[in-house]
Amino acid sequence: MSLSKLPYKGTRDFYPEDKRVLNYIFSKFKKVTELYGYEEYDGPMLESEELYKSKTSDEIVNNQTYLVIDRSNRRLVIRPEITPTVSRMVAAKRYELQYPLRLYSIPNVWRYERQQSGRFREHWQLNVDLFGVDNNDAEFEIINIINSIFFEFGANKDQFQIRINSRKITEYIFNEVYQFNQDQISRLYRLIDQKNKITEDEFLSDLNDITNNSNIAQELLKIFDAKSLDQLDSAITKSEGFKELSDLTKKLNLDNLVFDPTIVRGFNYYTGIVFEVYDTDLENKRSILGGGRYDSLISAFGVESLPVVGFGLGDGTMSNFLKLHNLLPNLKPKTNTALATIDLELSEIQSIINQLRQENINLSVNSSNAKIQNKIKWAIKSGYDYLIIIGKNELVKKRYNFKGLLDKSEKELSIEQIISEIK
Amino acid sequence: MSLSKLPYKGTRDFYPEDKRVLNYIFSKFKKVTELYGYEEYDGPMLESEELYKSKTSDEIVNNQTYLVIDRSNRRLVIRPEITPTVSRMVAAKRYELQYPLRLYSIPNVWRYERQQSGRFREHWQLNVDLFGVDNNDAEFEIINIINSIFFEFGANKDQFQIRINSRKITEYIFNEVYQFNQDQISRLYRLIDQKNKITEDEFLSDLNDITNNSNIAQELLKIFDAKSLDQLDSAITKSEGFKELSDLTKKLNLDNLVFDPTIVRGFNYYTGIVFEVYDTDLENKRSILGGGRYDSLISAFGVESLPVVGFGLGDGTMSNFLKLHNLLPNLKPKTNTALATIDLELSEIQSIINQLRQENINLSVNSSNAKIQNKIKWAIKSGYDYLIIIGKNELVKKRYNFKGLLDKSEKELSIEQIISEIK
Repeated sequence: MSLSKLPYKGTRDFYPEDKRVLNYIFSKFKKVTELYGYEEYDGPMLESEELYKSKTSDEIVNNQTYLVIDRSNRRLVIRPEITPTVSRMVAAKRYELQYPLRLYSIPNVWRYERQQSGRFREHWQLNVDLFGVDNNDAEFEIINIINSIFFEFGANKDQFQIRINSRKITEYIFNEVYQFNQDQISRLYRLIDQKNKITEDEFLSDLNDITNNSNIAQELLKIFDAKSLDQLDSAITKSEGFKELSDLTKKLNLDNLVFDPTIVRGFNYYTGIVFEVYDTDLENKRSILGGGRYDSLISAFGVESLPVVGFGLGDGTMSNFLKLHNLLPNLKPKTNTALATIDLELSEIQSIINQLRQENINLSVNSSNAKIQNKIKWAIKSGYDYLIIIGKNELVKKRYNFKGLLDKSEKELSIEQIISEIK
Repeated sequence: MSLSKLPYKGTRDFYPEDKRVLNYIFSKFKKVTELYGYEEYDGPMLESEELYKSKTSDEIVNNQTYLVIDRSNRRLVIRPEITPTVSRMVAAKRYELQYPLRLYSIPNVWRYERQQSGRFREHWQLNVDLFGVDNNDAEFEIINIINSIFFEFGANKDQFQIRINSRKITEYIFNEVYQFNQDQISRLYRLIDQKNKITEDEFLSDLNDITNNSNIAQELLKIFDAKSLDQLDSAITKSEGFKELSDLTKKLNLDNLVFDPTIVRGFNYYTGIVFEVYDTDLENKRSILGGGRYDSLISAFGVESLPVVGFGLGDGTMSNFLKLHNLLPNLKPKTNTALATIDLELSEIQSIINQLRQENINLSVNSSNAKIQNKIKWAIKSGYDYLIIIGKNELVKKRYNFKGLLDKSEKELSIEQIISEIK
């Protein structure tokens, strides 16, 4: 029986045309984050299982991780995200590293998910983290990076929206304003996370169930429907979290930044401001990017805690956005020139090949015994722009047949002329 | 109890200074393979277990793979190499793809190995494969790529040696010349693989054991001690494998290419010429690179077979070679300029920051409340070359303190002057 030609469900094969899209996206990610002074790091793809326990999202740990038991019975997990890894790495050099410390990475991460558009079991995720800044200059920079990334791809500010909130505000509402118990708070967090997926009536009915008080339910509905900070009433606006977020949004002064009290993020480690980016095109409903402040994760490694603000941005959600807004350029192969021989040994044309490559021309050679018509077809279907044809005559005359495959042109040129044509 | 700060045994954390080395090595890999017309691909890091069974090295499958059982009980393996993946991908588009087809990738691959210098459980491996060329033009190109890669790193031909053999020669010796049985052949392959790790007496004694004939053992010893093709006798030189290899080495005509009958490669899929690269410095004994021709792997997927020649080159063995020969340059951070504020809000200097970044200057900002002396220390220890210091006075005068951190220079400059200094 033959082997299956399909990749594992939920994963992708990247043929050159697909890999070019991925590389294009990565190159923009790198360009922008490096402009902001970030340096690239990476860590191992397997980490001990305990690194993820209770430090990351319960949903991910309980339902989405890939467990690996090695040949010495160590329990490992394929990283579902890289935040625990970078926290471990910074903790290991807590007192050597210099702060502010700017780090980014584009790791492949794995989650066992139901298949949906733009959601894969393996995806690549840009992670940008700023360590050691305790005031909102950190959020200011991180939000600016996010805008710069989208602009770098050619998006405009009407095409995406940054929705922001602070966990401190949500916790203040639950703990200080209404003094809910732990069970109520857990249920409320789950409900808020569902808000955009259910009707307003369902949402209100669940609020009634949880609070057992229709007045409070109405008040909560009003709070979680708020579209801007000034729609919150004075019971909330006197909180520290409100002042921080209000300061930040004034400082940023961005048209595409909106307050959204339903943004709470599913990760246990967030401690302050949290945000997500959404496409303004309603066809594309899923969050493209998410992040926030997590100031105490590093202390789990037994070192002094450290303020951190960061975000993660997946290749799948990013390329969905780019495709929907027609922002993906036509990406050509890295090689644009082919060379085909007629009745020649490869060694007879080695000096010509070397001359072209010394000029940094990427060159793909076809020296097979196939007919020249088939070699021309090969060059066209492979996506090359130019084809140089060399037979015994051309070798003697030192002038070669140079075909432009896009404009169907044809010339007899010396090697120096060919080099200048290609360049 | 706090979490461990260590990575999983046998794996590496890549802090920015380590990641720069990896990126440097990758950039050279990419540059050279793209000059030869290769396009990058990638595939999923998990594949079905059956993809590796009997298609790859028994040693790897039995002792070195990481098995993963997913939440639907599918049996998966973390890729120990990418050859089975690229074979699957090419098989899936067997009749659409154009040949010669040139593909490369630099995947992370996993093997459960005992720890040794330059050998890691997770490493990155350049894989270069030329599909669809049935004559030795394929080996000719692939061996030239290998040489070009080493030269691109600044190595010279006295520093590394390409050792070449053909499986067809070895099989001809075992099957045609001596007509050994299957058990003898398996034992001989294992013994040859050990030849450089044991003494000549031990080798001969094992040959005697296996062949049960001291004359034949002596003949085999002579064969496997051969240092060039002309040391083989006529019983062997009349074989097809010999003629192919002899043709190829004449065509290549390289000083650093040597015949080595002990090179047989541990992978089941090789069918013809095989080769490995070694450091000529005896301190570095392990093979740096290995590859060869595998013409029938693709038929395992139920499609017509296809000739292929390729090789794999790991980051660990490559960087060992580069370190030993002092070929790793000093790699600087991607960002060379820092900016520190004195008693200013970040928003007050935003236009200056934007101006610098618009000139493609990567800039790392420190707007904390720390003393300026501490900010200068931060900039020096972070490895930046320049530091711009801006306080209220500088903002009014529009001339800023510009420090050269390497030469300890200090100037008062306009932003335009600073931009031209940095460039």
